[in-house]
Amino acid sequence: MSPVSHDADDPLAWAREYTPILRSYQEEYGETKPLSGYTVAFASHLETKSGVAIETLREAGAEVLFAPSEPQSTHGDVVDALDAREGITAFAWEGMTDDEFDAAQHELLEEEPDFILDDGCELIAKVHAEHPDVAAQVIGGGEQTTAGITRLEAMEEEGILQFPVYGVNDTPMKHFFDNVHGTGESSLTNIAITTNSIVSGKDVVVCGYGYCGRGIARKARGMGGQTIVTEVDPRKALQAHMDGHRVMDMAEASEVGDLFISATGNREVMREEHFEKMQDGAILANSGHFDVEIDLEALEAAAESTSTPKEGVTQYHMPDGRRLNLLAEGRLVNLTGPFSQGHPAEVMDTTFAMMFVAAYDMLVDGPDLEPGLYNIPDRLDRAVAERKLETLGVSIDDMTESQQAYTEEWEHPDSSF
Amino acid sequence: MSPVSHDADDPLAWAREYTPILRSYQEEYGETKPLSGYTVAFASHLETKSGVAIETLREAGAEVLFAPSEPQSTHGDVVDALDAREGITAFAWEGMTDDEFDAAQHELLEEEPDFILDDGCELIAKVHAEHPDVAAQVIGGGEQTTAGITRLEAMEEEGILQFPVYGVNDTPMKHFFDNVHGTGESSLTNIAITTNSIVSGKDVVVCGYGYCGRGIARKARGMGGQTIVTEVDPRKALQAHMDGHRVMDMAEASEVGDLFISATGNREVMREEHFEKMQDGAILANSGHFDVEIDLEALEAAAESTSTPKEGVTQYHMPDGRRLNLLAEGRLVNLTGPFSQGHPAEVMDTTFAMMFVAAYDMLVDGPDLEPGLYNIPDRLDRAVAERKLETLGVSIDDMTESQQAYTEEWEHPDSSF
Amino acid sequence: MSPVSHDADDPLAWAREYTPILRSYQEEYGETKPLSGYTVAFASHLETKSGVAIETLREAGAEVLFAPSEPQSTHGDVVDALDAREGITAFAWEGMTDDEFDAAQHELLEEEPDFILDDGCELIAKVHAEHPDVAAQVIGGGEQTTAGITRLEAMEEEGILQFPVYGVNDTPMKHFFDNVHGTGESSLTNIAITTNSIVSGKDVVVCGYGYCGRGIARKARGMGGQTIVTEVDPRKALQAHMDGHRVMDMAEASEVGDLFISATGNREVMREEHFEKMQDGAILANSGHFDVEIDLEALEAAAESTSTPKEGVTQYHMPDGRRLNLLAEGRLVNLTGPFSQGHPAEVMDTTFAMMFVAAYDMLVDGPDLEPGLYNIPDRLDRAVAERKLETLGVSIDDMTESQQAYTEEWEHPDSSF
Amino acid sequence: MSPVSHDADDPLAWAREYTPILRSYQEEYGETKPLSGYTVAFASHLETKSGVAIETLREAGAEVLFAPSEPQSTHGDVVDALDAREGITAFAWEGMTDDEFDAAQHELLEEEPDFILDDGCELIAKVHAEHPDVAAQVIGGGEQTTAGITRLEAMEEEGILQFPVYGVNDTPMKHFFDNVHGTGESSLTNIAITTNSIVSGKDVVVCGYGYCGRGIARKARGMGGQTIVTEVDPRKALQAHMDGHRVMDMAEASEVGDLFISATGNREVMREEHFEKMQDGAILANSGHFDVEIDLEALEAAAESTSTPKEGVTQYHMPDGRRLNLLAEGRLVNLTGPFSQGHPAEVMDTTFAMMFVAAYDMLVDGPDLEPGLYNIPDRLDRAVAERKLETLGVSIDDMTESQQAYTEEWEHPDSSF
Repeated sequence: MSPVSHDADDPLAWAREYTPILRSYQEEYGETKPLSGYTVAFASHLETKSGVAIETLREAGAEVLFAPSEPQSTHGDVVDALDAREGITAFAWEGMTDDEFDAAQHELLEEEPDFILDDGCELIAKVHAEHPDVAAQVIGGGEQTTAGITRLEAMEEEGILQFPVYGVNDTPMKHFFDNVHGTGESSLTNIAITTNSIVSGKDVVVCGYGYCGRGIARKARGMGGQTIVTEVDPRKALQAHMDGHRVMDMAEASEVGDLFISATGNREVMREEHFEKMQDGAILANSGHFDVEIDLEALEAAAESTSTPKEGVTQYHMPDGRRLNLLAEGRLVNLTGPFSQGHPAEVMDTTFAMMFVAAYDMLVDGPDLEPGLYNIPDRLDRAVAERKLETLGVSIDDMTESQQAYTEEWEHPDSSF
Repeated sequence: MSPVSHDADDPLAWAREYTPILRSYQEEYGETKPLSGYTVAFASHLETKSGVAIETLREAGAEVLFAPSEPQSTHGDVVDALDAREGITAFAWEGMTDDEFDAAQHELLEEEPDFILDDGCELIAKVHAEHPDVAAQVIGGGEQTTAGITRLEAMEEEGILQFPVYGVNDTPMKHFFDNVHGTGESSLTNIAITTNSIVSGKDVVVCGYGYCGRGIARKARGMGGQTIVTEVDPRKALQAHMDGHRVMDMAEASEVGDLFISATGNREVMREEHFEKMQDGAILANSGHFDVEIDLEALEAAAESTSTPKEGVTQYHMPDGRRLNLLAEGRLVNLTGPFSQGHPAEVMDTTFAMMFVAAYDMLVDGPDLEPGLYNIPDRLDRAVAERKLETLGVSIDDMTESQQAYTEEWEHPDSSF
Repeated sequence: MSPVSHDADDPLAWAREYTPILRSYQEEYGETKPLSGYTVAFASHLETKSGVAIETLREAGAEVLFAPSEPQSTHGDVVDALDAREGITAFAWEGMTDDEFDAAQHELLEEEPDFILDDGCELIAKVHAEHPDVAAQVIGGGEQTTAGITRLEAMEEEGILQFPVYGVNDTPMKHFFDNVHGTGESSLTNIAITTNSIVSGKDVVVCGYGYCGRGIARKARGMGGQTIVTEVDPRKALQAHMDGHRVMDMAEASEVGDLFISATGNREVMREEHFEKMQDGAILANSGHFDVEIDLEALEAAAESTSTPKEGVTQYHMPDGRRLNLLAEGRLVNLTGPFSQGHPAEVMDTTFAMMFVAAYDMLVDGPDLEPGLYNIPDRLDRAVAERKLETLGVSIDDMTESQQAYTEEWEHPDSSF
Repeated sequence: MSPVSHDADDPLAWAREYTPILRSYQEEYGETKPLSGYTVAFASHLETKSGVAIETLREAGAEVLFAPSEPQSTHGDVVDALDAREGITAFAWEGMTDDEFDAAQHELLEEEPDFILDDGCELIAKVHAEHPDVAAQVIGGGEQTTAGITRLEAMEEEGILQFPVYGVNDTPMKHFFDNVHGTGESSLTNIAITTNSIVSGKDVVVCGYGYCGRGIARKARGMGGQTIVTEVDPRKALQAHMDGHRVMDMAEASEVGDLFISATGNREVMREEHFEKMQDGAILANSGHFDVEIDLEALEAAAESTSTPKEGVTQYHMPDGRRLNLLAEGRLVNLTGPFSQGHPAEVMDTTFAMMFVAAYDMLVDGPDLEPGLYNIPDRLDRAVAERKLETLGVSIDDMTESQQAYTEEWEHPDSSF
């Protein structure tokens, strides 16, 4: 792999070292510029790793327009460095208000992108709701979060989707890297550093046992935590039970938890009835995409006063003297906590590589797709996986001809019976 | 739950205590006999847990015909106790030869079952290949193994499937209980007891990172083993890598492994080129359905002589002095090893409950299905999961109306941005 | 390492392959016979691994007298094969009654051994209590169990010990290999195979958090169990808590456990007040040295009747309908269960190597020791560890001169402050 | 427990919530002031948790003099808030140079403390080396680190210790809380946040398998890392091997590691010969007390240039193009990294409680001790453990009289043989 340039003024330098897949695309497409002529909109938490994704799209020839997917997590130095480059335009700055964030996304859409790479489905939802003429011209899109996929499924069901979208979320590569390991590790790391507290010996309640919840729970257990899982799906509940976690309903979990982490993709997972039961000193954190998993309105209504005993911690003083400690204002604790560095870079490398190939595939290879939500094709998912293994120097086996044949036959003549 | 009868002469008594889901169906349908009038064929490893499944079908009213899915694992006392009951007919005995096993399956099929619950797809393959008239009358089937599903997929692709089959294997419940935990734990337990050896500190090579391989690898690591995974799928290889296992190709793994366990569903995963490199004293075991994963012919051809240093161990003496220790003759080590008690009972409870509801659904509720391979419907999978949680006394949450609505909307008005 | 002979009639062949440390002593001392002229008494569970230990003492020149340390665990073929050799005498046979066991130990002691390698302190206690003249001539002894050490400490406190004894138990090597990993893994393996049940998802109560309990609890957790630890020592209780186990008193644990395993070295850890609270179907197993940890008398008194639903399981039927399942009659579940192969061989290799060097050191190197209980010297413990690493092919570092010096100084001139 | 005051201007408020043991001593001794009349010197990393320890000593009546144990880790707001209180005097400020640090410790010693609670043995070493008159009057001391104990052992061997010192490090409570869990978790947390990288899938080399190394390795494995341990002690090496870590010498580990963490208490564990072999991008961190474990001089000599790609990371550019990334300048990564919050508060609560009882015991209860290094008495260690369990609401068992008797006897009349 070619050497990485080390400009002290380049805020992407460190992230670039930990994004070998994206770098390999930069190298491969730096000459041929296969995305030339296309404008690609890119929404994401804006920091160093998404910055490398943006420059990779540009390096492959695209005009890139980018906006935040969440107003609080923008790193100004990254935005400025990218915006300064030819062919890249920022609709973002550090410290945006919610209104500014909203307006900037509309401005971006008015530039009529050919392709939308989204994170939470805000751009795609907005282009459909308020920019129908633009939506009609969009070639396709990609979406990287579970929460966004849920919204796209609802849109598809209503029959209003105007272009094909690859649900990048719903691939093995995305699940295992980003959700299980990325969100899993970085949530715990940020909770630990924000609270200066320890996982070992704590009763850790993980709300939701999807890919994110599974990663959080497994790693909390690996750290020495006593894990408790809450679920609404009986299959996931049983899976958690068999994986060694205690399973209970939130009413019961509320009474025993020291640390609560939500990762459900749903809202009001912790709500008034639960706040009433929680122990003095309980810590509340959210790892789900939107800040709706902890019912903040109810929490404020229930408390007599609040204080900030430590950066990143809002302490709610309940009338009975109990104190509940909310982290990162209920936003994604791993991305918006005070010490947050965002998702680990290697993990985002994989996710952004999926987003890149989603765009490449629809724009360059041009599969003939009706409007709708599609799983990213297996061949692309595998291709990214193979590239990642190459960067790791890991060799795996090829099936022999005999094995390949075996998977295609059903009479099994070689079997002993 | 009603008391379990304790007849010392009843070989199913112990298994019945560990199969609470099946017992709950016996209780629910013992009066109404909803399967009356139907003949159900049942193939499985024949021991106490499958015995409870057979009696559950009978208790619900079906005529039951049963045969082994594998000739070596039959427990004679179970077969005899069931065969003695009215409405249950055995095509099986302990110590069958492969020819007798084959003949018995044909005899069973000549009885023209209405439904076939299969384990490895032998009955379903045979009824299509050699009993076309019977196949034409079969209402439907269920299949519980990955290996069987692979065969059914090939049959469906060839367009020769004559009736609908529920792939019971391919459900969350089946994967997590039977494959991950059942095969995972019982493989390690049987290897430990057969070799009188320890997992801690061993280099354990797990071939294949599907559900079974994942369970074996995770639990071997949990025991203190140093796990190595081999794969042909780059996504699964990466998943293994991120889960903390070393990933290498078999050529490299062959040189470092102390214990090799195959769980790929494919053949010749360990073959001559690997036997050549393995260390003196290496242990070879198979947890895949068929005894083709270790190339036994090549192993015998490569060895100068064999001996039996311990029950269940065949030692191959290589010309260069190395000794390779094959367990259970390369058959399923957890089911056919000398100390094997078969799959843990709680696990089989879940799998057989899925098989039971597969039959119940097609025969009683009668969904209108074309011939083909189907995933078992989610509502059935959930229903079994709920019943299992009830037997465990575990409560989970219901979605609130607000949450239910949230999963169906896409504009997220409650979100803060 | 020289080739191992493979005589099909040699019951020690398999064990010898897994005891590389003992084999290395056989090779080193096979010519020089440094123990010639000494009679060594050896008490142990008599099976293939202790058989290799006995032949190693003999190979090094000693006359060996051996007896069981527990009457139920003797393997007759091993006893016969050893007894047939010149210079080895058995005071044991398979199926001994408790009285015969007792008498045989006295007979052995009447042969006036020079050294006693004990397992549970029975021989050493008997020689002091009833053979004072023999005791007066004994050069020294070794003891390998925690339970035995406890007895020796009491004897030392009373001032009645007549000769020096190396507490082989109390070494890093013994703790980590035999207690944590040997007892840990083999207890779980034997419980799983005896009950045909699964650890995943079970509430596993481990009584005692010494080395054995720690191994059992850690591995049960690694398998997917939901572990609960009970303790009387607040430090160990806290350690368990921080290691991720739930800690409660037995009164509370009795109500929630599915599987109870005692490893305390004390008596009546599970007793009437606990039996009263246990759930229907609870499994009771003991991994402590003596069968006193579960109060069997109280259990029998509390039950209305017993049955044997499965080999190795005694089911106690309580008046209120609950059934409690006792494994292996409350004796060491890993050594006396129906499928037991005893401790894993690699583990016993380490323990018996410690016992061998204990004898070698006192008899050959002759340190001048007063009567009393001694920790085995560090140099011997290290020597065995080094030999084990050699057999594993593992290289470790040597301290540099600079590092060696650093450990001996206290002013730290190289430190930056 | 009485409510904690919440003054926004009180930098100790948050830490006080997570130090329930110390708070319980404040409550117990707040009235009686048993340490009145004594001057206690206290050296430590100066941040919120040590602040609570300092106020606890004061609350119990002592005059407290405090200084940093390490110049880089001082939090100015904590120092100021404490210094402002009557009876507490600071010899510290944020941003001290090494010289100022040194001078301040001497100034403190000139105040002639009666008791010295030390962290790394700097104060105790200095008082012996340069303030012999003061040393002659000191009643006793306590030391909380392994590194400090090593120095004290050397001092004792030389026969120069002038007063008794409790080695607080060498207790079960200290090992398991502070070393295993405190250093273990906070090292990984700080490495993750500093590098914005992930543990899962990384080859993590842990140098040293003492309590700290064990905690780091276990938790890294629990996160999904592929752990490698290096050691100089064959017993610890084997323990690591059996715990599931790969063991190799540093020469070999240098070639495969992605992340190196030293925790040996020795110097130059990573040195020139290792830097030469490390892969491009390798991360180097130290969790040992002193910044001598990574040979910084050799690293600088070997590199062509350095850069700072990210806060807390010094990148060494080797002549062959490889880049080695040193974290926190080789100082304790968990305490001096850029995002460090120091040891988790619950962990320090235990350690500082041990220090408190060490002082209380020697000053108030007055055991008659010769100069020398002593393990803290078991009764004190147990007392702190019991208090911690109380604050957790965890109940444990008391031995019955019968069990108590059993531990004291050796004939075991109740045993069945």
